Amino acid sequence: MTTWRLVLEYDGEGTCGWQRQPDRVSLQEHVEDAVAHVLGLDHRIAVIASGRTDAGVHALGQVCSFRTTVERSADNLFSGMNSHLPDHIAVLEARPVQAAFHAQRSATGKLYRYIIRQGPGKSALRRGRHWSVRWPLDVEAMRVALQALVGAHDFTSFRASGCSANSPVRRVDRADLRAVGDELWFELYGNGFLRHMVRNIVGSALEVGRGRQPVGWMAELRDARDRRLGGRTAPGCGLYMVRVDYPAALLSPPG
Amino acid sequence: MTTWRLVLEYDGEGTCGWQRQPDRVSLQEHVEDAVAHVLGLDHRIAVIASGRTDAGVHALGQVCSFRTTVERSADNLFSGMNSHLPDHIAVLEARPVQAAFHAQRSATGKLYRYIIRQGPGKSALRRGRHWSVRWPLDVEAMRVALQALVGAHDFTSFRASGCSANSPVRRVDRADLRAVGDELWFELYGNGFLRHMVRNIVGSALEVGRGRQPVGWMAELRDARDRRLGGRTAPGCGLYMVRVDYPAALLSPPG
Repeated sequence: MTTWRLVLEYDGEGTCGWQRQPDRVSLQEHVEDAVAHVLGLDHRIAVIASGRTDAGVHALGQVCSFRTTVERSADNLFSGMNSHLPDHIAVLEARPVQAAFHAQRSATGKLYRYIIRQGPGKSALRRGRHWSVRWPLDVEAMRVALQALVGAHDFTSFRASGCSANSPVRRVDRADLRAVGDELWFELYGNGFLRHMVRNIVGSALEVGRGRQPVGWMAELRDARDRRLGGRTAPGCGLYMVRVDYPAALLSPPG
Repeated sequence: MTTWRLVLEYDGEGTCGWQRQPDRVSLQEHVEDAVAHVLGLDHRIAVIASGRTDAGVHALGQVCSFRTTVERSADNLFSGMNSHLPDHIAVLEARPVQAAFHAQRSATGKLYRYIIRQGPGKSALRRGRHWSVRWPLDVEAMRVALQALVGAHDFTSFRASGCSANSPVRRVDRADLRAVGDELWFELYGNGFLRHMVRNIVGSALEVGRGRQPVGWMAELRDARDRRLGGRTAPGCGLYMVRVDYPAALLSPPG
């Protein structure tokens, strides 16, 4: 039995997200189809992602794992899957890892990026890859406000109603904001994220950026533990799962 | 009568290029439709581009001009066109300029970029936006070889057979190559380009990069004035029209 780790890039535009859906082909099903195809199986085997991504959300480095007794070389799996997958999904890495590796349960840290494009009009080449915002934004105020989220906190105020996590407590190690051309990149690194947590944080930070709330409001919102007090949920098209980290010991080749 | 200058961004993937075609809606027709719509006309008026772009070719700063007696504010034209244009075409600027301005004939310089992605596999988020190449490439050899093209030369060896230009002589001011992550960016700046000239230069530079031709071959190819001796035409999906320059005197507001 071999445990495989895949790193995936995907364009979430027009997709229904990672998880299996009754009426549409999800990213998960495309990946499971490609795995079955390359392994020569007539049935799908479960491919576990580090976490689900919603409709429209992109990945630069989603990590998945699956187990199989079928033997394949890493090169064979890599090129076979890339040939079989539709154009909006790419395998960046395919490697056998330690049997104890589990893409979801073994993850120690995740990096998400949220891209806002500022200004009038639109972008043709970046369509579906950002949230376009016309309001003038106070970037420094947002940067300061975001620091209220660093540390271990109860993130109930930034949690979607349908979130199935047992605990609303997460540790955010880093909450950065920087200007890249006409874009603003929010980057959040932490040990895990609740459903819509990054998008709700961005939507709430914009309340500060637009001057509708003072800088100190973000800490008040955090402590209030009430989602109804926060800003709107930023749309999925601006969100990127950038990287997932694991203990080095689990990533080494097996036996 | 007002002369308008538009700066356009477009995603060429899946399009038939700038110029009007018998059986498909070209980029030009989309733009002419949007102009007619915003001006409230029941007929299209001609919109002139700085130069045609082929199927699959992108623009970050294509420039167009048109003339009309209908009065509109720049803001009105900008936002009206952006609302009316399909998502793969955006207006970045719309300004009235001097009556003598002509997007094609007034252009003094053009910057093109060609993006190659190096390595195995594929990219999901950048699909249709580059040429993916698996061969190892000697970047320094290509950089040196490209310098043979700087200056005023007869570019017959890099000219497509269907090119309608009167003269094959063009002046290339700059031919740069740099690595940007896993991409190679070729940038050519000159006073004008023949049909497929940039793509044929890139395809020929790759002959040097792959070690199939020595560095000095590019100058020999240039002097041979024979397209049949050059490398293949690099695909349109990697090409971007980045910027078009004009005399400052023509860009000032009219009257």
